[in-house]
Amino acid sequence: MSLRVGVIGLGFFGSRHARVFAEHPAAELIAVCDRDEARASDLADRLAVHHSPDFQELLARDDIDAISICLPDRQHEEVAIAAAAAGKAILLEKPLAHSAEAAGRIVAAVETHGGRMMVGHILRHDLRYVQVYEAAAPERLGEPIHLRAKRNGTRSTARRLGGGSSILFYMGVHDVDAMQWIARSPVVRVYAQKCEALGTGNEDALYAVVNFENGAIGNLDYSWAWPDGLMNGFRSAFEIVGTRSAAAMDVSDQGLYFVDDAGTQGGDTHLWPEVNGRIGGALADELDHFVKATLAGTPYHQHHREALAAIPVLDALARSAASGAPVDVVR
Amino acid sequence: MSLRVGVIGLGFFGSRHARVFAEHPAAELIAVCDRDEARASDLADRLAVHHSPDFQELLARDDIDAISICLPDRQHEEVAIAAAAAGKAILLEKPLAHSAEAAGRIVAAVETHGGRMMVGHILRHDLRYVQVYEAAAPERLGEPIHLRAKRNGTRSTARRLGGGSSILFYMGVHDVDAMQWIARSPVVRVYAQKCEALGTGNEDALYAVVNFENGAIGNLDYSWAWPDGLMNGFRSAFEIVGTRSAAAMDVSDQGLYFVDDAGTQGGDTHLWPEVNGRIGGALADELDHFVKATLAGTPYHQHHREALAAIPVLDALARSAASGAPVDVVR
Amino acid sequence: MSLRVGVIGLGFFGSRHARVFAEHPAAELIAVCDRDEARASDLADRLAVHHSPDFQELLARDDIDAISICLPDRQHEEVAIAAAAAGKAILLEKPLAHSAEAAGRIVAAVETHGGRMMVGHILRHDLRYVQVYEAAAPERLGEPIHLRAKRNGTRSTARRLGGGSSILFYMGVHDVDAMQWIARSPVVRVYAQKCEALGTGNEDALYAVVNFENGAIGNLDYSWAWPDGLMNGFRSAFEIVGTRSAAAMDVSDQGLYFVDDAGTQGGDTHLWPEVNGRIGGALADELDHFVKATLAGTPYHQHHREALAAIPVLDALARSAASGAPVDVVR
Amino acid sequence: MSLRVGVIGLGFFGSRHARVFAEHPAAELIAVCDRDEARASDLADRLAVHHSPDFQELLARDDIDAISICLPDRQHEEVAIAAAAAGKAILLEKPLAHSAEAAGRIVAAVETHGGRMMVGHILRHDLRYVQVYEAAAPERLGEPIHLRAKRNGTRSTARRLGGGSSILFYMGVHDVDAMQWIARSPVVRVYAQKCEALGTGNEDALYAVVNFENGAIGNLDYSWAWPDGLMNGFRSAFEIVGTRSAAAMDVSDQGLYFVDDAGTQGGDTHLWPEVNGRIGGALADELDHFVKATLAGTPYHQHHREALAAIPVLDALARSAASGAPVDVVR
Repeated sequence: MSLRVGVIGLGFFGSRHARVFAEHPAAELIAVCDRDEARASDLADRLAVHHSPDFQELLARDDIDAISICLPDRQHEEVAIAAAAAGKAILLEKPLAHSAEAAGRIVAAVETHGGRMMVGHILRHDLRYVQVYEAAAPERLGEPIHLRAKRNGTRSTARRLGGGSSILFYMGVHDVDAMQWIARSPVVRVYAQKCEALGTGNEDALYAVVNFENGAIGNLDYSWAWPDGLMNGFRSAFEIVGTRSAAAMDVSDQGLYFVDDAGTQGGDTHLWPEVNGRIGGALADELDHFVKATLAGTPYHQHHREALAAIPVLDALARSAASGAPVDVVR
Repeated sequence: MSLRVGVIGLGFFGSRHARVFAEHPAAELIAVCDRDEARASDLADRLAVHHSPDFQELLARDDIDAISICLPDRQHEEVAIAAAAAGKAILLEKPLAHSAEAAGRIVAAVETHGGRMMVGHILRHDLRYVQVYEAAAPERLGEPIHLRAKRNGTRSTARRLGGGSSILFYMGVHDVDAMQWIARSPVVRVYAQKCEALGTGNEDALYAVVNFENGAIGNLDYSWAWPDGLMNGFRSAFEIVGTRSAAAMDVSDQGLYFVDDAGTQGGDTHLWPEVNGRIGGALADELDHFVKATLAGTPYHQHHREALAAIPVLDALARSAASGAPVDVVR
Repeated sequence: MSLRVGVIGLGFFGSRHARVFAEHPAAELIAVCDRDEARASDLADRLAVHHSPDFQELLARDDIDAISICLPDRQHEEVAIAAAAAGKAILLEKPLAHSAEAAGRIVAAVETHGGRMMVGHILRHDLRYVQVYEAAAPERLGEPIHLRAKRNGTRSTARRLGGGSSILFYMGVHDVDAMQWIARSPVVRVYAQKCEALGTGNEDALYAVVNFENGAIGNLDYSWAWPDGLMNGFRSAFEIVGTRSAAAMDVSDQGLYFVDDAGTQGGDTHLWPEVNGRIGGALADELDHFVKATLAGTPYHQHHREALAAIPVLDALARSAASGAPVDVVR
Repeated sequence: MSLRVGVIGLGFFGSRHARVFAEHPAAELIAVCDRDEARASDLADRLAVHHSPDFQELLARDDIDAISICLPDRQHEEVAIAAAAAGKAILLEKPLAHSAEAAGRIVAAVETHGGRMMVGHILRHDLRYVQVYEAAAPERLGEPIHLRAKRNGTRSTARRLGGGSSILFYMGVHDVDAMQWIARSPVVRVYAQKCEALGTGNEDALYAVVNFENGAIGNLDYSWAWPDGLMNGFRSAFEIVGTRSAAAMDVSDQGLYFVDDAGTQGGDTHLWPEVNGRIGGALADELDHFVKATLAGTPYHQHHREALAAIPVLDALARSAASGAPVDVVR
């Protein structure tokens, strides 16, 4: 038995989702959708599947069991609610939504219709974050004392996304989710400052200090202000120190280098590398989990309510950065 | 349709093979075998499969399509030839055999019986080596000039294996295979020196300089003389420089650290890490490939004749280390 | 002509200062002082100099031109003011003092007596920080956008110092000084949170977000909560991203490893390594600068007023961590 | 008292020597010399010293005590012998000479005239190599088992030097000297292979396996075939494993990064970085040692006979690479 899938939104992530589903032995890619019809038909031709510029057409098909939504944040609400109403299993690329209210409405729709939804929190499938999570189990770590998360990218990303996303919802959701997951405790209070000097239409950087319910403190370091020559294109890191032990990871350097006359580049060894002609890494593992758990009817690693818990923190961070005062997280 | 598998030899690799097959959606683990009957029954109980101390029992079963052989090098020949005769598809842990002659006899048996065999060259499934291989395609790299491979481990491994293996056949086969694969050219001449100061019953280290048919030169750096406190337990690296570009990887540091009062340890991010309760990484990818290609009747990424090509190089390296003179590789 | 020096306080830093002065061609170590008379006489014997348990005896000597003060923070004020009154040139280990008020009184004393004083901000002599400073020149960096500084150590240090120091004054002063120096702008507002779970008598960790007068934002990451097995014993990092370019450094790994059966240790390649029998690195460079500039009567790289500028920031950070609210820096 | 110095040859190293001597408190730079008169007069003007295109003029001056020779390898012999005859203390940039015979004649001249000479083996002043040397003391390391040294650079260097130097004499001498120093044992036998595919007028790469008198084995990895985009421009590494412990260093990454739109560059933290307006690092330390030991009449860290011991190894490596056979080192 195969899971029959449609993918909506064929940008960077959507086109990769489509390929991974097409290559998966237990999945069958039925159709792809993008407002840009040429983009949709190109990909559909290559993968020999149907295509449409209208997401409703995919939702109306009986031969589609599951929908992967890879649209810009602000379009999540409409499509996800319609997919829930259509009875499809949903894989929703992070962030759940662009605001706490929209996220709440999506979750309500899923629950009302008795459907199921998995949010694309790829770090939950990244071998490094998962190992840090396991090392942070209370019996190994003791009580958490402090956690730090870094996610930095280049300014051309901020420029490309412009007002369509924000540093918190596009990048920040990863680390807020990871922090609450790894700390085994929710963030209850935040303070953030941002800087907007580059004029990209987005924040350049946002630094925050947060408090967890269990007493630990957290440090968030977000930037997409780095010059575009940054080796590997991004830098992420995570560390947690507890009363008994500590765990840390740093993705600046992945021990893989490609050198030519123009410079030295790194390689992706974990996210979505192509290996032997197909996409591997954490993205493939995430989609594999979605396919198998949906087919088996077993719970996803992360319940959608747990994914939802990141959104009020993003909201509080945005309000703190705007007001210059500490803000309590409202749930 | 599932591939029905038996695993023979339940040491470090065999027990992992068994778990991976048991977890694989397209495989069915039928039985496991080890001379140590307690070890076999323990694992069989946990995985709810049959077990036997006698490999012939597994070969005689009609409900087994494929056999994974994870025995010490010197036992490969007998079991692999019997498995070929029994008409089973074979996954043979590296090295193919402990000598060029034995390897030739195994290959002959497989071909005589019209069977198929895949050798467990895990680097072919390691995202980092595969990317170096792809970066070394002639249109990107130009002509290869020099290649270096390092594989270093700790002395307790050498001590544990004693005379049962050798630095070349246990560790060296990885890099000889990788070098010929990535250089797209066979090694034709070698010179090696070794050192035996620790009295582990094995060589401590072996350094070699080799020549490829295409004119490139190679450098091999093998050791299992490192003190047991080596962070991460091993260090491997590979680099290739060509007329147009170059690629390099280094696995000393994987950007993942676990710290407690006793010290700092690294983590395995690529070989056989446990993620979300199951074994992932290159080993899982290798077995996944074996299952799928065997079921589909498509060729394995690496033909067994290509795996065979590493053995005469190991043989030549051993003879050079013994004689102190350069040795031509005889094929 | 030599600079004749006395060293007061013979702990970790004082004993190293004494050795460096004793080895310096343009300095002459005259006497050392420590309340622990055995410690003072031991070192004095080895270096063939005078010793005393009473710092006033050193200040009273006519054959001493300069005094290096390496005492715990809370004793800086008394001794520095007395040294200024005695007309000695002063090298004062960081931090200037344990409070803004005490720091102000020391500076006033130095200026009243027309003396000179250099504060031991070793990062100003660390090749890596100095190169980041140079890369952050406006014509290279453009306008600063965000700066991050990390200084993390092990819990045994916090335990050893107990209430005698604080994470901000012992460690934090380095990075506050470095941030203001490299950003070419003072910190004007701060927000900090701390955690005290280990019961060492000191804060375990303090995270802060700060604002610079020029609009940049800053992130401070202080901890001495790491387990004592942390490789190298500490981790520090600094990065600055500007409108044109960026610079970063990370001292977690210095590319130097010592391995034995107990584990893998790193090496100090920059702070106070012993090379060819004498202390080198940044500490030696700092003292060399003190000797030469004092003898020549030329300004120190950093004026004492610039060193003083770090203290109100530490003060604001401490008040913010205590109150949980953002605090403006009062100068 | 100052050491009065003249510098002959004002290329990359000579111009730096001149600056370091001009900045040194115990040295006085008197004159500089280069066949390229414009280059000599430019530098002389900036440093306010004499200049000449003729090295004999410098040797004839009574107000010069010491000569630093920074010429291409093939010009070492003539100038060094003349300097020895003129009674000058000599600092001779490595390699001693371009052949074993020339090196022997230089040493003979120095000894005949009762003079003194220090060879510019900068690794003896590199904090990392010195610490590896100290970690390799017999009481810490036990008996050496295997040593590996790597020195890789970019093809533009090979192209620029053309036939004027060779990979062994320009780069290789560093590591041959370091290996014999750190192993506390001479190399007695070598085997080398080289590759010449780029047509730079120089070898692209040379790999070698060597034997030490004490039974250890060595691995040499030389290349200047890397594309010019190699981050930091070079990669060097050294490791030694002994019966008790091991030490390793790697200079690929120095934890210092400069990022702009064109790419990410590293920084020099050890060789000849500029700090606070003057040249620091190992080069400054080396020249400082030359000045102080020459003035004091004390031995140099490395006797010239010890420096000489590297030359026959280079010679043997060149002969082996040419003949394809192992070669015994003749002393």
